[in-house]
Amino acid sequence: MTDGILTADQILTAAQDVLRRYGPAKATVVDVARALGVSHGSVYRHFPSKAALREAVTQRWLDESHAELGIVLASDAPAPVRLREWLSTLFRAKRKKALGDPELFATYTVLVGESSKVIERHIADLVGQVQQIVEAGVARGEFAAPDPAAAARAVFDAFGRFHNPAHAADWSLPDIEDDFAALCDLILRGLEPR
Amino acid sequence: MTDGILTADQILTAAQDVLRRYGPAKATVVDVARALGVSHGSVYRHFPSKAALREAVTQRWLDESHAELGIVLASDAPAPVRLREWLSTLFRAKRKKALGDPELFATYTVLVGESSKVIERHIADLVGQVQQIVEAGVARGEFAAPDPAAAARAVFDAFGRFHNPAHAADWSLPDIEDDFAALCDLILRGLEPR
Repeated sequence: MTDGILTADQILTAAQDVLRRYGPAKATVVDVARALGVSHGSVYRHFPSKAALREAVTQRWLDESHAELGIVLASDAPAPVRLREWLSTLFRAKRKKALGDPELFATYTVLVGESSKVIERHIADLVGQVQQIVEAGVARGEFAAPDPAAAARAVFDAFGRFHNPAHAADWSLPDIEDDFAALCDLILRGLEPR
Repeated sequence: MTDGILTADQILTAAQDVLRRYGPAKATVVDVARALGVSHGSVYRHFPSKAALREAVTQRWLDESHAELGIVLASDAPAPVRLREWLSTLFRAKRKKALGDPELFATYTVLVGESSKVIERHIADLVGQVQQIVEAGVARGEFAAPDPAAAARAVFDAFGRFHNPAHAADWSLPDIEDDFAALCDLILRGLEPR
């Protein structure tokens, strides 16, 4: 591979492979450059430091679940339907990652723990999406929420067991789908107008 | 100290000191016996194995937050008031433990992770307490819940950020009281009759 066609995305893909192979404690920028057949200077041209590269690869991994959330967000369905679908999409995306590739999931859980800025931005983004659905629901008379921002934060907090990696061990429990449905019912009733 | 007056509770207190001093990886039954000035046989007379002793000390630690919950449970206040008070009591008890003695809290977080039986029993007990409040509320027309057991599980799951040690780092955040209030509002609205 020549330096001329090296993209940030190729570097992030190589970085993910390196992280998987060596683990987050040992992976270096030199390993990433070697995997791409380029100098480490070529990597630093895109990412000014090892920390910046790790943050970018973590950000990309977190954002992967957002593509599908965006489709739900853009739909014209009633707000209660959209919110349940949004929660379900988030849970399913996270569970697929955790159970489909547990080793990579564990690696990213370490990386996420390292970078509070990345995780804060990620959570703010997700809470913002919930707020968007809540506000649309309030405007259409489908939800009641005196403070949509606070309600969105509460919905997101209430949903921790179904998206926070700290609870990944629960996602293959036999009752998890029932628990998920019961929590969605409680959340949606909590937003219903009376 | 002579063996004659050695109680299970004295052993558990000594075991907690030993765990704090040596950490959960290194603490042994012999250390506990030495701290009490007795033979390790005297400890084994109360607890048949190291695992049993560790489970008992973990159980006692988890149960400590229950004493105050029992008072809330026994009160005659309306169910919505009782549920908010119960959630608040649980959160405050856990936070006090986490922030008041972070080292011991970290030790117990390791022990809790070791013993899935103890934690399952603990969670079943707490969910049962919520169910008791929900059922009382339904009987008095203060709550609506077609399936009180499912609703209780959902309330408990929704409350994870405020009692699960995995989220202890959040408990000293500046917004935590606002987030707690918003979540309680959502939960209580979710149980309101219409």
